[in-house]
Amino acid sequence: MDLKENERIDYIFDQKMPIIQSEEVFSFSLDAVILAYYTRISSRAKVVVDLCAGNGAVATFLTRKTKAKIYEIEIQEQLAEMAQRTAILNQAEDQINILNIDLKDSLKYLKHDSVDVICCNPPYFKVTPSSQQNPNQTLAIARHEIKTNLDEIVHVSMQLLKSGGRAFFIHRPERLTDILAVFDQYNLGINRLKFIHSFKDANSKMVFIEAIKGKSSEGIKVEPPLYIFEKEDVYTNEMSQIIHG
Amino acid sequence: MDLKENERIDYIFDQKMPIIQSEEVFSFSLDAVILAYYTRISSRAKVVVDLCAGNGAVATFLTRKTKAKIYEIEIQEQLAEMAQRTAILNQAEDQINILNIDLKDSLKYLKHDSVDVICCNPPYFKVTPSSQQNPNQTLAIARHEIKTNLDEIVHVSMQLLKSGGRAFFIHRPERLTDILAVFDQYNLGINRLKFIHSFKDANSKMVFIEAIKGKSSEGIKVEPPLYIFEKEDVYTNEMSQIIHG
Repeated sequence: MDLKENERIDYIFDQKMPIIQSEEVFSFSLDAVILAYYTRISSRAKVVVDLCAGNGAVATFLTRKTKAKIYEIEIQEQLAEMAQRTAILNQAEDQINILNIDLKDSLKYLKHDSVDVICCNPPYFKVTPSSQQNPNQTLAIARHEIKTNLDEIVHVSMQLLKSGGRAFFIHRPERLTDILAVFDQYNLGINRLKFIHSFKDANSKMVFIEAIKGKSSEGIKVEPPLYIFEKEDVYTNEMSQIIHG
Repeated sequence: MDLKENERIDYIFDQKMPIIQSEEVFSFSLDAVILAYYTRISSRAKVVVDLCAGNGAVATFLTRKTKAKIYEIEIQEQLAEMAQRTAILNQAEDQINILNIDLKDSLKYLKHDSVDVICCNPPYFKVTPSSQQNPNQTLAIARHEIKTNLDEIVHVSMQLLKSGGRAFFIHRPERLTDILAVFDQYNLGINRLKFIHSFKDANSKMVFIEAIKGKSSEGIKVEPPLYIFEKEDVYTNEMSQIIHG
């Protein structure tokens, strides 16, 4: 596999899974590993969609837990192309389909009410007059709501999912009011929230969300949190298990 | 102090604070202790209001951390009367004013935009055709949204609070979608959430909420959780400190 300038291959899950990374345009981080780990896919699932797929890390991780067809939807050509090469590196090109499209156009490629599971590690930050965006436009689009926003992503998720289908997101706790309102608006009832803290005494930096299409928004379960580090540079046992798969 | 039938006095904070309890009508529990502990009152605060005050436990606990006037608003006469006797037992009858009124009428007794801090341990459960209410009507009113509901309580809180004044609530995580929507609707921006878990591996049963009148709903801080028990019948160190004050 030829790598382009500034690309490298990171191996995850005890060196078994290669992912093409590039700090210049995008590199997956713990968010993707955690999202894939907590995503539950029924053995009956036939279609899984990863929205805002980036370099395809989440979808590639999911090949370990499902035989379903996985569609990666990614608007940025350079990332979609990296994701394609990562799929080939993992001999997953039959299972993974990469759609280099704007997610607004998803319904042109996938049927309404046809998807079992949606995964999404979306751009976390709102674009405001004062928001500090990365001068690198590819990174800015991955992190800020420039090309899409939470409302649009959840709306598309609702259209794609079967009744009873599940959406798994990872996002920022600061935006919880927004997040809960938008999921409720589109009739995706939140089932589980899990807050992720870097350290035992630190505020949460990430929240994992599971929602079910058609479920009531009453009855949210807030699970025990995940702590990432035991101390500086030392993962907790739980996080080690997640990383080693 | 004469006790009525089925009443008892519980002592808290290393036996220093007596609270009149009655299992027949109401007894405070850890919810009240936790709410009072995490409530922050500025030394400049002049007026504190405890909505849904019950037997007055939260307000009595707060006398340890503020010299402000504390109004307890409680609709049930029997509870308001117990709260009055508890205030006397604690020689706090000058600081504590008990208003035995429907909280909808609060604005007849207290001025708009005049309150520094509101505390509330509200009825947790919605009334639905299938909801199982306690046959004891006093207990049912304390636990179920029979006489009031979250929308009304937060609306009254917004009317009473000064701009920049703070509301401290304790509620159930299952209702988080509702809770965040209602606080947002009434322009009480949530500042802190803290989830409370009985055990390290248990889902959360309570959530502590701090909101600020006029603050944006962006920027919620999800603090490290509180665990109540280390193991069966053994409090964690953190919970022990809270209970011993």
